[in-house]
Amino acid sequence: MTPVRFGILGTANIARKNWKAIRLSGNAVVTAVASREAAKAQRFIDECQAEVPFADAPKASGYEELLRRDDVDALYIPLPTGIRPDWVIRAAKAGKHVLCEKPCAPDAGQLQTMIDACEKNRVQFMDGVMFMHSARLPRMRQVLDDGETIGDVRRVTSQFTFAAADDWRNTNIRANQAMEPLGALGDLGWYNLRFSLFVQKYKLPVEATGRILEEHNGVSMEFSGDLFFADGSSAGFYCSFRTELQQWAHVSGSKGSLYLPDFVLPAFGCESSFETNRPVFRVMNCRYHMENHPRRHAVAEYSDGSPDAQESRMIHTFAELVASGKLDPFWPEVAWKTQVALDACLKSAREGGLPVKIPG
Amino acid sequence: MTPVRFGILGTANIARKNWKAIRLSGNAVVTAVASREAAKAQRFIDECQAEVPFADAPKASGYEELLRRDDVDALYIPLPTGIRPDWVIRAAKAGKHVLCEKPCAPDAGQLQTMIDACEKNRVQFMDGVMFMHSARLPRMRQVLDDGETIGDVRRVTSQFTFAAADDWRNTNIRANQAMEPLGALGDLGWYNLRFSLFVQKYKLPVEATGRILEEHNGVSMEFSGDLFFADGSSAGFYCSFRTELQQWAHVSGSKGSLYLPDFVLPAFGCESSFETNRPVFRVMNCRYHMENHPRRHAVAEYSDGSPDAQESRMIHTFAELVASGKLDPFWPEVAWKTQVALDACLKSAREGGLPVKIPG
Repeated sequence: MTPVRFGILGTANIARKNWKAIRLSGNAVVTAVASREAAKAQRFIDECQAEVPFADAPKASGYEELLRRDDVDALYIPLPTGIRPDWVIRAAKAGKHVLCEKPCAPDAGQLQTMIDACEKNRVQFMDGVMFMHSARLPRMRQVLDDGETIGDVRRVTSQFTFAAADDWRNTNIRANQAMEPLGALGDLGWYNLRFSLFVQKYKLPVEATGRILEEHNGVSMEFSGDLFFADGSSAGFYCSFRTELQQWAHVSGSKGSLYLPDFVLPAFGCESSFETNRPVFRVMNCRYHMENHPRRHAVAEYSDGSPDAQESRMIHTFAELVASGKLDPFWPEVAWKTQVALDACLKSAREGGLPVKIPG
Repeated sequence: MTPVRFGILGTANIARKNWKAIRLSGNAVVTAVASREAAKAQRFIDECQAEVPFADAPKASGYEELLRRDDVDALYIPLPTGIRPDWVIRAAKAGKHVLCEKPCAPDAGQLQTMIDACEKNRVQFMDGVMFMHSARLPRMRQVLDDGETIGDVRRVTSQFTFAAADDWRNTNIRANQAMEPLGALGDLGWYNLRFSLFVQKYKLPVEATGRILEEHNGVSMEFSGDLFFADGSSAGFYCSFRTELQQWAHVSGSKGSLYLPDFVLPAFGCESSFETNRPVFRVMNCRYHMENHPRRHAVAEYSDGSPDAQESRMIHTFAELVASGKLDPFWPEVAWKTQVALDACLKSAREGGLPVKIPG
């Protein structure tokens, strides 16, 4: 199989991680990197080549030129959310497949336009949520669906946070309304929402609430929200740029529960795991006995920098779709649902916390 | 020291656990047990004596008689919430100290009247929240206050649930509006709220929200809520009679986090523990490295049925206060604050989820 040729549109730091993931994917290469300044693109290429070299060094390019290059099949687009929709649409029109950083767009309306453009131009759309490609996910699906370990899902609770330095909010793009209008809700909450939707087999919630716990320049720095599903189950989440790194998720069911301390970025070296629980509780006259023995489920998967790391799998899966010539509607659909849920949480927050209905 | 003499007012199952705790406390005895039916009280006594005997078998009594007995210093009152306020006030007027099951009252107004009666009659009031007496609590306080491990608290998240059998809601008192008007929010949420207040050093929140996720006969079966504090920090919780046993809590701070999987009832045998976390996250060009090594903090403490179990410590502390002749205002105060927070969450739920202000 000929490797899928990636152009990287923008030189955000996360693109360095995906450069490496493309290198390790086994079915893709980077052929060009675009920046607004040619020198910046070249520096990015030189630094990445020094650490993770491709046999043929990728070429430095401008944004417009990247779209016209015939040695590029697909674009990885880590541009800021504020300008991403325009470039995704242009990429689609240029016939390039799109791996799009998250949050995909400022709102679901714009994302729909982006997805429509991809569909019309017969290119694959996928958002860059790496955990969707972890080997842990199908294992969790199996456990969630076995009817016994968890039973009916009643609640998903998750938190994803990191503590930014004090001067960060004045300099980082993620605290800039024009560039990242969704702030922490977009940068972090996207993962919480996606995980909740994964558990719920991508059913849309029927209602959502949200609250901006801290705001800076019109952008959420800290946010909590809840999703409510038609069957009475719910999902709560919290995301923050103010709180030290945390990335846990609990799934609570009628028969048991599931916990993973690292749902976004596997943080335990050579394997990814989760635990399931069904504590023993017995009342025997004067004795109340409680006992807990978590069951551990693990898959072999390096946390980073390996062909089986989730980011390498993401690139591999995307490149396979590109090479297949068939479009998989699953990926634009789950991105769109994530954005719809996000929009509803934000609308609720802007409306004082009142529940916002989500049309089915 | 002469042991403090307990009368047990009501024969709820939980009273059997506290019978044993009184026996193990080292400074208290049960002298009488009251039921509306004398035979029921005697059966309770016989069954408990057979397993956990006092040297002098406690006497069976009626409710009214128990208040008049001069061999009773203090009452443990596990009566249903709907009728508990009246009996707490009568106990106080009879000069009996009061260890009161939770939720203390249907609302904070009634609880205030109960507390006022105790204060006026110079008797101690305490609610029966066992985890408040775990040796783990001071250890957590130390870690929370060291300024380094957690830093500033930004978020507390907790869940306490158990899955009741299908016919439970039609027969159990906890699904009966007159007896237990607060349902799951009172029976389980009380612990979530208390834990959140403990972390916050018993500051009252300034606002609360809540949602009844499931209701039966006008009583919450499943509830989620949030507390918002003046410094911008918050606490989210979920409690349910529909979800398998879970009792976890996370404290998320600016510098690290704390997790305990069993905050209500220690579930790991001969010790109680919690873990703290500050993951390593480093971006080094193409490498994103994440590493997690929880630090474990443990105290020696049996999960049940031992003099150092939290329920035995609860009785010991309460009996010490009774014997000292001095009243500790801390206990009525934290019970009242818990009820105030609970009331605000419920009011919000009844008002469609709008935030409810809590006067300072």
